This record gives sequence, C-alpha cells and structure tokens, in this order.
Amino acid sequence: MNGAQALIRALVARGVDVCFMNPGTSEMHFVAALDQVPEMRGVLALFEGVATGAADGYGRMAERPAATLLHLGPGLGNGVANLHNARRAHTPVVNIVGDHATYHKVYDAQLESDIDAVASNVSPGFVRRTGRPDDLVADALDAVAAAIGPPGQVATLILPADVSWSEATITTAARRGAAPAPAVDEARVEQAAKVLRSGEPVGLFVGGRVVREPSLTQLGAVAAATGARLLCETFPARLERGAGRVPVERLGYLAEFAAVQLDGLAHLVLVDAASPVSFFAYPGKASDLVPEGCTVHTLAGPGDDAPGALTALVDLLGVGPDDAVRQPAARPETPSGELTAQTVCAALGALLPEGAIVSDEGNTSGLFAAGATAGAPPHDWLCLTGGAIGQGLPVAVGAAVACPDRPVIAFESDGSALYTLQSWWTMASEGLDVTTILLNNGSYAVLNMELDRVGAEASGPRARRMLRLEPPALDFVALANGMGVPASRATTADELVDQLGRALATPGPTVVEAVVPSII
Amino acid sequence: MNGAQALIRALVARGVDVCFMNPGTSEMHFVAALDQVPEMRGVLALFEGVATGAADGYGRMAERPAATLLHLGPGLGNGVANLHNARRAHTPVVNIVGDHATYHKVYDAQLESDIDAVASNVSPGFVRRTGRPDDLVADALDAVAAAIGPPGQVATLILPADVSWSEATITTAARRGAAPAPAVDEARVEQAAKVLRSGEPVGLFVGGRVVREPSLTQLGAVAAATGARLLCETFPARLERGAGRVPVERLGYLAEFAAVQLDGLAHLVLVDAASPVSFFAYPGKASDLVPEGCTVHTLAGPGDDAPGALTALVDLLGVGPDDAVRQPAARPETPSGELTAQTVCAALGALLPEGAIVSDEGNTSGLFAAGATAGAPPHDWLCLTGGAIGQGLPVAVGAAVACPDRPVIAFESDGSALYTLQSWWTMASEGLDVTTILLNNGSYAVLNMELDRVGAEASGPRARRMLRLEPPALDFVALANGMGVPASRATTADELVDQLGRALATPGPTVVEAVVPSII
Repeated sequence: MNGAQALIRALVARGVDVCFMNPGTSEMHFVAALDQVPEMRGVLALFEGVATGAADGYGRMAERPAATLLHLGPGLGNGVANLHNARRAHTPVVNIVGDHATYHKVYDAQLESDIDAVASNVSPGFVRRTGRPDDLVADALDAVAAAIGPPGQVATLILPADVSWSEATITTAARRGAAPAPAVDEARVEQAAKVLRSGEPVGLFVGGRVVREPSLTQLGAVAAATGARLLCETFPARLERGAGRVPVERLGYLAEFAAVQLDGLAHLVLVDAASPVSFFAYPGKASDLVPEGCTVHTLAGPGDDAPGALTALVDLLGVGPDDAVRQPAARPETPSGELTAQTVCAALGALLPEGAIVSDEGNTSGLFAAGATAGAPPHDWLCLTGGAIGQGLPVAVGAAVACPDRPVIAFESDGSALYTLQSWWTMASEGLDVTTILLNNGSYAVLNMELDRVGAEASGPRARRMLRLEPPALDFVALANGMGVPASRATTADELVDQLGRALATPGPTVVEAVVPSII
Repeated sequence: MNGAQALIRALVARGVDVCFMNPGTSEMHFVAALDQVPEMRGVLALFEGVATGAADGYGRMAERPAATLLHLGPGLGNGVANLHNARRAHTPVVNIVGDHATYHKVYDAQLESDIDAVASNVSPGFVRRTGRPDDLVADALDAVAAAIGPPGQVATLILPADVSWSEATITTAARRGAAPAPAVDEARVEQAAKVLRSGEPVGLFVGGRVVREPSLTQLGAVAAATGARLLCETFPARLERGAGRVPVERLGYLAEFAAVQLDGLAHLVLVDAASPVSFFAYPGKASDLVPEGCTVHTLAGPGDDAPGALTALVDLLGVGPDDAVRQPAARPETPSGELTAQTVCAALGALLPEGAIVSDEGNTSGLFAAGATAGAPPHDWLCLTGGAIGQGLPVAVGAAVACPDRPVIAFESDGSALYTLQSWWTMASEGLDVTTILLNNGSYAVLNMELDRVGAEASGPRARRMLRLEPPALDFVALANGMGVPASRATTADELVDQLGRALATPGPTVVEAVVPSII
C-alpha cells in the first residue's frame, strides 16, 4: 500500500471522510487513491479558497474535521484567507498540502517555495512535514488529534509527493489521542457565581461552543435568574437561534454600537470567548471595548471545557432550563414594494425554513437580518469569524455537505461573493441544496463607511472609485448561470419573495440576485 | 502630510505610479491619499490575485515596478500565487500590505495574523515592517530599490494603519539606491568563449532579460557563428519573438521532451537562467535535466549583469548582428472546419497583430501555439514563470496598463482562468484592450496526463472526477458577460477566425470562448 492510500485509510478510520480539494501534479497519488479507498469522498473545488472555506463550514456543522488537499505553496496561499477564518472559528480542519518529492526540493524547481512559512500563519499550533513514508500514518493521526483540539484548529500536514507514492507501513495506534479539554478550576466557577449574585450589572460575554445546545439553555437560565445581560461575539462560528431558543444578542461590529451594548457593566464574565476588542483601530478611539471600571472575569476560554464550566455554574447557582427565557415565534410580514436591505431581510425572516443553516456574509446589507429572523423557526447562523471576506459561499458548500438533509442559505454580499464565486460550480457539481441570496448594491459599502470612520481627510472621486463595483455592473445571474447554477434577479420585494420561495422549494443550488440600494 | 500621502509621493518620485489594489479598512488612508496625489493611478481588482498578477504583468512590460495594496494577512494570502510567479519571473514589484495600527496588534483582533511569515514566502529578499511614520519614506525607497534589483524581486512593505494616518516626515534621499548588477568576471566570459570554440556540441541555455533585445540578437549571432544550440527556459517571463527576430526554442515542459532537446550536448552555457530541472519529480526519473557527461558553465546568473556579459562574449568572439539567423515571416493558413487545439493555435498565428503582447496560459491546448506564431509579426510572449496557475488573465491586465497602445491577447485555458476570473471586470472597468481566447476543453487536461505520468496505479472514475470541469459545463460567455465583458463562443474554426478577427479589431476587452476537445 502506498503512502497516499495509507493516509486516506487512517483519516477515514478517524472519521475524516470528506476531502475538499484542488489538487495538482504532486497530489496525484492522493487523488488516485480515492478509487482504492471509496470511503473517502472527494469534493472538487475550482479554487483553493472554496476548498478551505468548505472545510470550515463542514467542521462547524459536522463537529469533526474535513480534510483539504492543496497544491504546494501557491495553492496554500489561495487557501489562506478561509483557513484564517477557520482558525478564528476554532474549526477542526486537517489541512493537507502537497509538496515536491523530498529529493526534488534541492533543485528549486519553478513551484518550489517555503510552504512551512505560509502554513505557520494559519496553523500556528500544528505544522507537520512528513519526511518518511513510515511516519505518515502517525503524523496524520497526530494531525487529526490536533485539529480536534480542544480548541479546534487548522492542523497542517505537508505531504511530499514521494511520501505519497512510496510503500508505507500502517500504524494503527495514534501517537497522540485527542486530549479532553482541561476542566475549569472550581475557583473560577465560584468567582463567576459570586459576581453574578453581586447585584451589580453583569454581562455574560459568550461564544464558541456555548452558543449551541446544551450550553445555550444554561446560559439563558443563568442570565434570566441573575439578571445578567447575555451578549455574544460579533461573529460567532455557529449560533443556534430562532423561536423557542434562548436569544443571544451579538456584539455590534461598529465600536460605537458595541459601546452602547456594554455601557454600564461592572463585570464581564467570559465564556468561550475572548474579551471584546474593536475590529480595527480608529484614530483617537480605544481598541479595548471593555468599559472603564468594568472588571473582566474568565469562566472558560476557548481551550477550556467551557460547557463543563457552565454546567458547574448552573449547579452552583441552582438554576435550571425552566428559568431560561425563550424567543417567541414571530416572523416579519411578507414584504412588498421597494427592494431594500430592510425588505430583503424581512423576506428572509418571512420565509426561513425550519432547520435552515444560514451562512451570513451579508455585511452592510445584512444589517437587519438578525432582527428579521430572530423569531423564525429554529436555525443555525454561521458568521464571518475572521473577517476575511469570501467566506460565505464556501462555508455554505461545506455546511451542505455536512448536513445534506437541511436547507442551506448563503446570505451573501456582492463584493464578498467575488472572492470565491467558484463555490457555485461545486454546489452544482455536487447537487448541494444551497439557496444564495446575492445582495447586489454595486459597492464595497462597508469600505465607504470605513473611509469616513478612519478619519481619512478629503477623500474624493479617485478614492471612491476604488470602493465601487461598477461600472461595469456585475450581473450575478449571468455569473451563476456561467457556473451552472439557475438564477433569477429581483428588483422589487414582491419579486424577491416569489423567487426566494421558489428557490427554497427547489432542490439543488439556486441563486436569487437582490438588487438593493446601499444603506451607506 | 500624513504617512500615506508621503508614501505615495515617494513612490511616484521613483517612477512607481500605478497601484493595483484590493484594499480594506486598514488601507483607507492610502486610498484617500489618491485624491491628494493624482499622479498615482489606482487600479481596483476584485480579488488580490488579480492585483498581484497585474503588478507582475506590468513590471515585465514596463521594466519598472508597480505597487500593490493588499489587506492584512488574508489579503496577502490571496495574492501569494501570483506573487510567487512574479518572484520566479524576477519581476520588480513593490508589494504593500496594510496591517492593523501598531498599538492594536496586541489585542489579537479578528483579522490579526502573522503577515511577515506569509510575506517571507514571496519576498525572501525584502520584507520591511515600518514601525514609525518618520521611517516610512525611507523604507518605501528601500523597497523600490530592492524591487528593482538586480535581480528584480517582490519587495514587501508592511504598512500599519497608524503609520498611514500619522504625520510623516518627508525624506528625500533614499537610504539605498538601486545597485548596478555586478559585472561578470572576465574568466567566465573566456570560459564560455573557449567552450563555444571547442567544436564540441554546446547549448546556450538562456532566459531572463537576454531573451529580449539587444541581447537576443547577440545570442543569435553567437549561436549562428559557433553552431551552438539556442534554448531558453520553459517559461520565460518575457520572450521577444516573431518574424525578423532571432528564434529561441523553449525547453519542453515534459522532461521526456526536454531530454530530446538537450540530448548529445557536451556543454551547457547558462545566460540569465538556472540549470534546467524537471518541473515535478516522477518516480524513477531524474530531476536534473542536464544529460550525463554534459558540463554546465554559468556565463551569468539572474543577479549578474547578463547583458553586459553577453556583450563581452560577442566582442571576444568577434561576432556581430549580421551573423544572427532571423525568423522568416510566415503565418499558418487561416484554419477552417473542426475547432481543435491545433486550429485554435493556427487562428492565433494567422491573426496575431504586430506588436501584440501574448499572456500565455494555454497549457495543454496551447501546445501548438509556439509553432503557429513563430513567424507572425514581432510580438512579446509572457509565460507562467512560477507554475502557479491563474496568472494569465491578471498578467494581461498589467501588460495592458503598461502598454496601452499595444494589443494584448490572453491565451487562456479554462481551469486556469477560474482562479482569477475577476480580471475581466478590471479589464472592463479600466477599458483595457485585451482579447481573451478562452480554451474550454472541460478538463484539467494537464492533470489527466500527470495522473498517468506519476505512475499512479489503478486510478479510476473517482479520481478522474477530481480532474474534470464538468458537469456542469462552464459557460465562459455568461461568465464574461457577468463581469461586464462582451463575449462570443466559437465551435468551429471558421467561427473562431471570424470572432477573433472582430475581437482584435474592437477596442476594450473581448472574450472569445473556443470549445475544443482535450488533446490528452
């Protein structure tokens, strides 16, 4: 058995049975091995950013890693942006990067480059280069264990071509098993309980795994019983929400809004979240969003057993699921008339199917989506964890592969879509049930806002020209059709409701382009 | 004056007056400064790989650097593949990567990552992080000098947001001027002359700057007068060729072909080229392409004054321009009938305009292009220097910006086009006169070939499925239209000739999709 076959068998044995790939010559033995080990599903992407973003979306929903297969340094480079998002989401990903044969590297052939350097950006915790075929299986099992964490991470395995094609020994035992998360010190639980009982204004700032069940209900119980404000990360990896669930307010992207949300708090208790900071720095404004005089307490960080800590806290406080306040069912009225960012969001709220997975990269046009869908039937909401745009469509691909029986909605803005548009082809190729709502406002609207917010003086038409997406206007119906996906364009709210309703009822991928004015 | 304005003024003063950009919030002051310093032309790309590839194409044609402007680590990641190609082409590029404000980095905000690590992959010779506004101009001038070389390189300048927005001192003097290339030792010239006069079979293996005038004619004179075989790199950055010029044979991509070309040589004299090696390793095959018993002599490497060394050699040998054998004018007959890789190439040869710049990423379908265009009117041929696909369309963008009065042809294959398709939007947005011939064979054909060549055993349908681009079939006419570029589809040679003729006669961008069977 050659290395590639042994590697794939080892991955499959550990539950890693999907590989999102964009291979090249140095990965051909891995590709060939797909016929020998049919338990591994290969999913082709036409650009590496689609493969890495899909692995992120898959990992968030499946709660186990997918593999990627990328071609040398340039292929890894193309995958960096969405691996960055996966790193920030603590998504488990086994990131396999092919390399030249070990003995070929000395020749500095055209595609030679420092793969390890690039990998260290997205995989600071685990970069392994397998030097000998006999190490491959053990290295792969280490990579799977490292990817699973806790916390979950992108584990990069660099795979030389000759290691793939040479005869390999099978190692059945992992050198390193997935470690359990370290239990949280009792003192931290007691401190959190003390703060929550103090009668002073307390915020629970939460994220990671605790914005999903069973932790979510526990958070709701703690908040309701103690009067604490419940806030979560601006961009949670996967937020369970909707009617009947505990509603969690996301911290605003704009520091000005976040300041209002955090105003007056004497204590902030962190649960599987880092202390809130401004997305970017702005001249004369603080980066740290914690209000003056507010004390930060960490109940559990991303590497800790946050769900366990929360259970201990609930026990200590003596609160139970019945204490939690639940989101009542409510949908916006079906919108009519003008198509705007608001009416698009209303249409989404009115039509969102039960059990939907929403990959949200709506950006400025999506501002009203959280409110419009708060009382829709239960669903999952996946966010732009690392701020590297071009995530929404690939994450939808991965979510749909992980959850073939659930409807997936990519709520996507025009500028962001353009980075990884090739996702549509993979949706069509794999027959994935993804409905894309493409918000076309002809602009990098968020940057028009940021241009003013950073205090850039006297910007004029030459600057504004760098922030607009027309002329020429992008035609997303044509682009979707070009990728093999049926599409339609809505210019009124009534058209959108009609088209979105039909798209959601249609199996396989569909794109609905919503032409909206910019809210900026 | 803030840092961004000072930086742009410094760049413009050194002749860097085009910036290909895909900015984000941390680069907004640079963008705003475009209105204060209108001598800098900003060209927006909707994906960073377009910006970096365009900078490569620009640098190859303008022979001076363009700047890029990229957003943090993920933006740089998206630009890595084409910066890799630029590195391999020795193209001068001033690669500006925005970063968080210096004081913001400690907060590990969502977009924080190790930019320096990624930059070291593409800029091993120059990565500078400016820490203080007063250092910015000097750092920028150092970056320009480093980019120019020799040899030309990608010089990365990491620009924190607060360095951009703070008041900066103008430094008029560069800390480091562009250094002249080190002159080649006389002994090397004498050694080359001795070998060339030895009567033994000699190959001149050339690349870099010497496959352009005035060196090209000198190479032709040396080869003709001494009987040496004239061969160049498989993927030269910019090859001047066509009727009346000295013809240079490119080394084959396939080691099997290269072996035939190099067979029987007793000496190989390198001029601005590295010793030939196999693109990839293959089981049981040598990586080094130099035949056994052949001695390699370096007249000049990429960092040396190769044109100067060649002039010295010409003088020593006493040969002159009249000795050079020139390519006779000849075009293929206008093809008719079936549309194949061969008839597409014949159509290109029949219609190629004088002074055209061809950005060649035709890959397998382009196999016959070199032969079909050899005797066409003089033109430049730009190749996939680093092997990282997705180069062809962006390089065409940059070449058209550098040479607005010359027709540019992107000779592009389907799989490669998909990586940086957003190039078409920039062509339309900037009104660039680029004709794309899109070779659609529905396949990563080169990988189907490589799958067999690497000796991958028993590959089957599951492997082959990872190498095909359909179903669904990609519709490049729709994709081009979606990006705002007029397009047509040819399915016969007659249609192609007709459509290509009209496209070449039309100012601005046009796409002609040529549907061809795979040659593999």
